[in-house]
Amino acid sequence: MKLVFLGTSAAQPTAERGMTCICLVLDKEVLMFDAGEGAQIAFQKAKIGWNKKMKIFVTHLHGDHCVGILGLLQTMSLQNRTEPIDIFGPSGIEEFLASNLKILNFGLTFPVRITRIKEGLIFDDPLYAIHACKAEHSIPAYSYLFSEKDRPGKFYPEKAKKFEIPQGKMWHELQSGSEIKIGDKTVRPSDVMGEKRKGRKIGISGDTRPTKNLEEFFKGCDYITFDSTYSDKLRDKAIENYHSTAKEAAELAKKAGIVNLILTHFSARYENADELISEAKTVHDSVIAARDLLEINVK
Amino acid sequence: MKLVFLGTSAAQPTAERGMTCICLVLDKEVLMFDAGEGAQIAFQKAKIGWNKKMKIFVTHLHGDHCVGILGLLQTMSLQNRTEPIDIFGPSGIEEFLASNLKILNFGLTFPVRITRIKEGLIFDDPLYAIHACKAEHSIPAYSYLFSEKDRPGKFYPEKAKKFEIPQGKMWHELQSGSEIKIGDKTVRPSDVMGEKRKGRKIGISGDTRPTKNLEEFFKGCDYITFDSTYSDKLRDKAIENYHSTAKEAAELAKKAGIVNLILTHFSARYENADELISEAKTVHDSVIAARDLLEINVK
Repeated sequence: MKLVFLGTSAAQPTAERGMTCICLVLDKEVLMFDAGEGAQIAFQKAKIGWNKKMKIFVTHLHGDHCVGILGLLQTMSLQNRTEPIDIFGPSGIEEFLASNLKILNFGLTFPVRITRIKEGLIFDDPLYAIHACKAEHSIPAYSYLFSEKDRPGKFYPEKAKKFEIPQGKMWHELQSGSEIKIGDKTVRPSDVMGEKRKGRKIGISGDTRPTKNLEEFFKGCDYITFDSTYSDKLRDKAIENYHSTAKEAAELAKKAGIVNLILTHFSARYENADELISEAKTVHDSVIAARDLLEINVK
Repeated sequence: MKLVFLGTSAAQPTAERGMTCICLVLDKEVLMFDAGEGAQIAFQKAKIGWNKKMKIFVTHLHGDHCVGILGLLQTMSLQNRTEPIDIFGPSGIEEFLASNLKILNFGLTFPVRITRIKEGLIFDDPLYAIHACKAEHSIPAYSYLFSEKDRPGKFYPEKAKKFEIPQGKMWHELQSGSEIKIGDKTVRPSDVMGEKRKGRKIGISGDTRPTKNLEEFFKGCDYITFDSTYSDKLRDKAIENYHSTAKEAAELAKKAGIVNLILTHFSARYENADELISEAKTVHDSVIAARDLLEINVK
């Protein structure tokens, strides 16, 4: 599982940074959080693959967070994508997509399924769940939480062989969590497998002020990416524009017990993130500054 | 006057080429023809200026020709632009802009005036006119023609001084085309000025098959930029997708007596334009291949 940053600039692009787009690349699926203008170009550079199973989660309907979806859908069609795409976002997402798909004469080659979200659980399957929480921005905006389900422990073939369990169906049953009988012996999964592995949790703030609600929402995450538009010297501007400073991001991360904090969504005024990283590190031990095409392996 | 190419790729961007966008930069105004995704990034790189007087002409409503307008308008607002922008395009342009401006919560800082075009004269002022002609594409599409008005000849101060005309109002009258009286002598503008300079003509094809109508429309242009999506080896594909080959562009340019032909809108399959240039040069003497950020001084 890895996080891939396709765009890390706030509002306006710079020579080095494209507009917001973050991918969580799972074994068999890509979860994209926001897609600002230029997302398809970065997506291509990152070589993620045009026909992968995919969901897009939009935090809010500012152009720099969602306009890139249009080009992505168009290019995927030119690449003859067949896999459906699910797109989740706040009220207005249906109108944005429906009207552009109609006006711009997309010859879509695959289904696009749109879901208008509210707070709470918005997607759940055996591998992971996605929750949304209201953020505090100038327009309705949400933060997202990816929660991986706990995974079964590692399977040790040598232990299974010791119990003289033949490879095949019985191994599979044990791996799936069921006991088996071999002769008059009962073998439990824990006899041949390691400890359950705890599911990983990753939070994506989108554009927001730091809030008590988000602190609760992200509690115990392994990683969060958080709005770090400004240095703390411009906290007034952050308040006025409903963004956060890097230091505020670190304070929230510390209170929420976040293991790793990733700063992103930098104002174009910062040529590099040195000042922002320094500020955040006065508060939190593990701080990373995102940059375009940065990949982080999520352990 | 110069042509600046901000994007020269067809439909899909490549590492080297962004999506279609061509600027004709006049002394005091920028005329932009199409604005595919990423136009604002190239516009910034080309250092054209965020607050210049500007018109945008959209050839047709495919995403790769107009989605970039949204980011341009957003960033211009963040730059506190105050100058109005006029946007011209085929039916649907009003809906595209109006619905996105509404949904995407643009805080526009300047007026956007939208004009739905038909064939014929679509703009006229003392400096230039813009005409539109129906192109032949998979959806309603137009080509544009920029016709500069004839300019008065060069003014020679030394000749004016010879006639003992005092600098000031009388010089201005002569420069504006009026005769003046000095004592009992009549001085005509042609006595102190060179030959009228013929206005320059520049054509922009947009996406199209080569047609007899466009050959007429572009007759005698100093420059045209023409759809050169494919090599002539793929003429079948060009016909099927309502585009042109580089050779077809050259054939039309030759028949229409175009002085300089600029090939653009290259399929992503061509790493460079060598093959396309070679083909076109078998037909036409002056062929240039556009590339992103290429500037051509229009003499």
